[in-house]
Formats: sequence, C-alpha cells, structure tokens
Amino acid sequence: MVKKMSIDHPEWKNEQPFKAVLENDMKELAKQGEHGLIQLVMATHSGNTTVEFDADVKEWIKTAKHPTRNVGFDKLVYQPMLELLQYLRANDFKTYIVSGGGVDFMRAFVTEIYGIPEEQILGSRIKTAFDYNNGNPVIKRLPELDFIDDKEGKPLNIQKIIGKKPIFSSGNSDGDLQMMQWAASNKYKSFMLYVHHTDAEREWAYDRDSHIGRLDKGLDQAIKDGWTVIDMKNDWKVIYPYELK
Amino acid sequence: MVKKMSIDHPEWKNEQPFKAVLENDMKELAKQGEHGLIQLVMATHSGNTTVEFDADVKEWIKTAKHPTRNVGFDKLVYQPMLELLQYLRANDFKTYIVSGGGVDFMRAFVTEIYGIPEEQILGSRIKTAFDYNNGNPVIKRLPELDFIDDKEGKPLNIQKIIGKKPIFSSGNSDGDLQMMQWAASNKYKSFMLYVHHTDAEREWAYDRDSHIGRLDKGLDQAIKDGWTVIDMKNDWKVIYPYELK
Repeated sequence: MVKKMSIDHPEWKNEQPFKAVLENDMKELAKQGEHGLIQLVMATHSGNTTVEFDADVKEWIKTAKHPTRNVGFDKLVYQPMLELLQYLRANDFKTYIVSGGGVDFMRAFVTEIYGIPEEQILGSRIKTAFDYNNGNPVIKRLPELDFIDDKEGKPLNIQKIIGKKPIFSSGNSDGDLQMMQWAASNKYKSFMLYVHHTDAEREWAYDRDSHIGRLDKGLDQAIKDGWTVIDMKNDWKVIYPYELK
Repeated sequence: MVKKMSIDHPEWKNEQPFKAVLENDMKELAKQGEHGLIQLVMATHSGNTTVEFDADVKEWIKTAKHPTRNVGFDKLVYQPMLELLQYLRANDFKTYIVSGGGVDFMRAFVTEIYGIPEEQILGSRIKTAFDYNNGNPVIKRLPELDFIDDKEGKPLNIQKIIGKKPIFSSGNSDGDLQMMQWAASNKYKSFMLYVHHTDAEREWAYDRDSHIGRLDKGLDQAIKDGWTVIDMKNDWKVIYPYELK
C-alpha cells in the first residue's frame, strides 16, 4: 500500500519509515520501532470514511498472506488462546481484545476469528470528523493520532471505555504490563497471564532485546509476583488452528 | 462543591461561571450555557483518582436533592423511557446511554436506575493519567477536557467505542441530532425518537429558545423526515416512577 501511495508522495524516498518500506529494508524498518509503525498506519489508513475503510480491510484480509509463512493473517491465531476465550465465556466472563493495533482495522475482521463483538475490541485510533456527504452523514478518518492503546494507554482506555477493572488479563509484551498491573490491583482475586514467545521453530523466539513486542520488565514482574507465564515451546502442543486439520 | 472549593480559588469571585454559582445567580449561570457547565464540571470533578471520584459520586447521590422538587436526582427518570428500555432488551436490543454528561459521573449511579452496565454508558470525559500511588496503580483525573459527547461528538463516540451504527436512537435536544442522523443513515431500517418537553406543570416545557437542551433543528428534521416525536404533556400518563406508588 505504501508503494502504491508513494506515487503521490515523492518525499517518502528519503523519509523514514517510508524509505525502509520502499527499499524492502526490514532491518531498518524494525529499527524504526512502534513509532515508525504508527506513522505508516496513519499515512496509509486515513483519508477515507469509516465505512470505506472497513470494506478495504475486509477485502485485504481475503487475500493477504504472511510474507514468510504463506498463510492468511487470520490463520495466525493461537489455538490455545481461542480455547481459553471459549472457556472464559462458558464461565460467564465477558471477553475483550485490548491491543495496540488500530481498532477500526481489527473490528473489520477479528470478530469472526475470536468470537468477540466489535464493541468489545479496544485499540489505537486516529481522529475522526463527522461530515455530510451529499446529505448522507459519514465519519471521516483524519491523518492525526487520537490515542495509542499501549503501555499506560491500555488501563486508561479500559477505564474510559469499559469503566471496570479487569479480573483476568493476558498479554505478551511490556506494552501489556500496565494493564497487567491494573488487573493485579483489583480488589477481587485476579489472574495475570503472560505468553512468552520461546518457540523459534514453530513460531518465534524473542523477549528482552526485541524492537517489536519486547518482553523484559513484564517478565521480571511476572516472575517476582508469581503471574502465570506460558512457555510456548514447552507448554503448547498445538500453536495454530490449521495444525489440527 | 464550588463554594467549598472557592476557599482555594479567590479568583472565582470575579470569574464566570464560578461567580454565578457563588452568587446563586441561576440566570447568569444559564447564560454561560454548556461551555460554562463543562468548566464547572472540570474544576470540581478532577484532581482525584477514578476510584475516589466514583466513591464521591455514590455518596453524593444518596443525599442530593433536586433544588425545587425535593426528590433525589435518581428519582427524576421517565417511567415511559424505563419501560421502553425494558421492551427493547426483552427483544434482544443492546441498550446504551449516550449522554453529554460526564461518563464517570454517570457510571457511578445510573447502572442501577436504567439497568445499563457501565461499559454501555458513553459520555463526556476529562483526560486521565496512569500513576503509581505507593506501588499501587491508580488512574488520576486531570483538569483537562478529553472529549465532549454532544452534537457531532455523539456519532463519533459511538463509532469509536461501539463501532456499529445504531438502529434505534432516542434524544431530546439538538445535541442528539447528529446521532439521530447517524441512526437514520443505517442501511437497516431504523427508528428515531424525540422526546419533546411540553409539560410545564408535571415537568418542564421548553424547546427552540432554551439555553440548555435546546430542541430546534432537531424538531424541524423530525417533522420533515417523519421521526416519532413524543409530546410529554399529551402522550405520557405517567412521567416519574414515584407517581405509580
């Protein structure tokens, strides 16, 4: 999408993170970190209406494949986490997704995958404006960041939108730590769960030194406070649902 | 609360809207309009944590009475609207409150009144910050406006938080008009309902010239587009639940 849009943005040739994408320089892109990713998302995911954006993402997910695994992104979910969500709902938990990803992006396709309705998906968002398109009201997506649902943004967004403290919280990076601490501070008994990516063969192995999804302080606190840490390599017999077929 | 806090704010004696409150000048206060109300709310409803604020409101609602009617604010709800909410839920509608009022303020006491859980209450909000209070995470309420859930803010907030277009929308002022238009633009059949305050005896009568809660453009569009308009005086046999006892 960056390549297609770069026709109208000659300056991107010399500007990060766009330069890295145009040159397929994944190492440089990783160095740009989450800030770079957010810039990319804002540039490529704004300017249209919420209805148009939703249709675009639904179209994209039909054919998009992970660059090295050759499967759709919607297939790269964790079977044990799907089972956990089902188990929680079967026991009257209301399940939410609270992710750094763009909320409108996620809502377009993850409801079906996780069985979580649109209104229970929280994420980062850009600013929007209400407008009339030939008398028909639309909401336009503006190229300006509204809220980053990461680190302290997670408990803040949970409080803003849900207004209740979680009693079960699961994550896989330091970006989830404040949400874990927020759940741990519940006056009711609460459960904190970290997924530790330890399986370089079936999935990925990374933690303290990763540019994206770093798990460092979170791991320390999990060990110190006795939170549950899943060791993907040793604890999960199956990772992806398609392994079951 | 303004009077109590004015000890630390000598400048309020000469500053609106505080001056009007300190002098009990309701006419001047009305002139300050919704902007003045928001300033009041920000000054009096920030600086503490979300947990403290919730406890304060719960304490306040126990004893607070409407200045002229001598009943608790929680008793001044509309019996026909309670019945409508029950009817909708009995038919598998998910019901929400979308109000210009402060969301944390409403969540502290309206769930019980309307049977609507905290996470289905949308409102205006101030900015917040995540902090550690002796190692215990808290969310602090800052004296800075984050979002006004009024006029175009209503559909924007609905899209942000719920991510779906309503198929039933009810309101009583021009502040609800954009939300009504948003519901009316649904690709599914939708229902728009305005409550018109026409009963000066049992409740209040106001519409096009009111400083607070003006219903002018909304009434025009309701008539033009055939939306349902409730005439409180003639359509409602009972207004408040306590009339039933």
